[in-house]
Amino acid sequence: MGRVTRRLPVTRVDGETVVRRPDTLAVEEPLEIRVGGRPLAVTMRTPGDDVDLAIGFLLTEGLITRGEDVAAARFCAGADGADGNTYNLLDLTLADGVPEPRPEAGRNFYTTSSCGLCGKASIDAVRTASAWAVEPPAAGGSLDHETLIDLPARLRAAQRVFDRTGGLHAAALFTVAGGLLVLREDVGRHNAVDKVIGWAAREHRLPLRDTVLQVSGRASFELVQKALMAGIPTLAAVSAPSSLAVELAAEAGMTLVGFLRGASYNVYAGAGRLRLPSGTAVTASPG
Amino acid sequence: MGRVTRRLPVTRVDGETVVRRPDTLAVEEPLEIRVGGRPLAVTMRTPGDDVDLAIGFLLTEGLITRGEDVAAARFCAGADGADGNTYNLLDLTLADGVPEPRPEAGRNFYTTSSCGLCGKASIDAVRTASAWAVEPPAAGGSLDHETLIDLPARLRAAQRVFDRTGGLHAAALFTVAGGLLVLREDVGRHNAVDKVIGWAAREHRLPLRDTVLQVSGRASFELVQKALMAGIPTLAAVSAPSSLAVELAAEAGMTLVGFLRGASYNVYAGAGRLRLPSGTAVTASPG
Repeated sequence: MGRVTRRLPVTRVDGETVVRRPDTLAVEEPLEIRVGGRPLAVTMRTPGDDVDLAIGFLLTEGLITRGEDVAAARFCAGADGADGNTYNLLDLTLADGVPEPRPEAGRNFYTTSSCGLCGKASIDAVRTASAWAVEPPAAGGSLDHETLIDLPARLRAAQRVFDRTGGLHAAALFTVAGGLLVLREDVGRHNAVDKVIGWAAREHRLPLRDTVLQVSGRASFELVQKALMAGIPTLAAVSAPSSLAVELAAEAGMTLVGFLRGASYNVYAGAGRLRLPSGTAVTASPG
Repeated sequence: MGRVTRRLPVTRVDGETVVRRPDTLAVEEPLEIRVGGRPLAVTMRTPGDDVDLAIGFLLTEGLITRGEDVAAARFCAGADGADGNTYNLLDLTLADGVPEPRPEAGRNFYTTSSCGLCGKASIDAVRTASAWAVEPPAAGGSLDHETLIDLPARLRAAQRVFDRTGGLHAAALFTVAGGLLVLREDVGRHNAVDKVIGWAAREHRLPLRDTVLQVSGRASFELVQKALMAGIPTLAAVSAPSSLAVELAAEAGMTLVGFLRGASYNVYAGAGRLRLPSGTAVTASPG
């Protein structure tokens, strides 16, 4: 759609040098997601792969469980009809038999489940909501150390836009053998993950067994939740996870890797899914 | 409250060395914000300064305009009463004469303003919603180049928690003379900004004329919007802004600085508020 980046004038100051020049920025625009004509949510996102974003959003919010649950998607002209179709309003039609979202579904689904009370209530709500349980790890693990440590560099190499703006989060789905399935970028990291999961849902690939979701930033509760809703067994982040992200991953039997940089990383949950270098000795440190 | 960080066991892999040890993580827990007993929103946040967070949220969503609009705040026991008060449910009582939020106010206010259609509609909605217009810059500027370039280092120095977890966003409010007014951290960068603005509202400091809001990450539309709702004239970010952040800042007469690192930065809007080094020559580059 040619709307991922935009060039705008900027005053660049570098010590005593000041230059007026164009700069390339990541585009951020609101997308209103409607279901059956009724507004469900607005997300600030980078345009592109909007149908995947909307399907991934519905799926990770527990409103649908597979790509086939959405029968059609269409961009509509908005209230400012004079400007024509802005491609910022997307209306999804659900398949026959798929229940419409309840009116309150526009708020995060853990809002509506008597949660907001403690982390445990949130975790319970998410666990029961997922249609796709994560399978227990195979004996001896399924993901090689060497494959894992290559993922951040492979994600960066695949990020065409990043180098131009420095402003986009990325999420990439790999097979446990290291094959890149899909990469998506967005100003919002949750949107990048929804775009990945929406793509997989449309491609009839759910649940996403034997995959690794690699993200460019931190691992929040929300990202673990989204991975879990698609049955992704392993989430790897370049930066830190939060406490609740770790608790949810551990409860759900997911593998959560953080601070994945070079040949080093932290495994916060589900270490049994990893095949560490042969001869590795595990020692305990009181820290 | 002692809940900003939590220690959890982690498997640390570094090449062929594997150590089991405790690790310190940033805490993330849901906060349910209620107004007059009615649920308004749930945000995933780092506990601490929750009253400021709630006041800042109401203010930046346009539901109140000053700290005095909130008469009382109290943590309530939730549905899981067996566990006692989790300090994750905060009920605000509005002052006499302050209208209760409409039922749909729990969704972002630009959701409810026939927006989600184009960036321009969002910008218009935000502009009309702010009680505090940003004043035009004084002749010759009000913020010294030397003061500005020190802010990221001063923010980092003040971040006690960051060094321990690597997982927290920070927002700090400085005077244009460089005085630190307040610093707040959170797993969510919007929460860090809401905590800063809520503090200022409680301290009767709105509108925040002659201040700079320095943030540790990127500058999204949402952060510019929040600054604008509090009358903050300058937002400085360590990383990139989005296109819509720049457009909103320019429309509102705010100064927006990005990629502020060392002695260099980009000014995306409102350069007239800065006093550049004397003798600086501005040249134009076709880029």
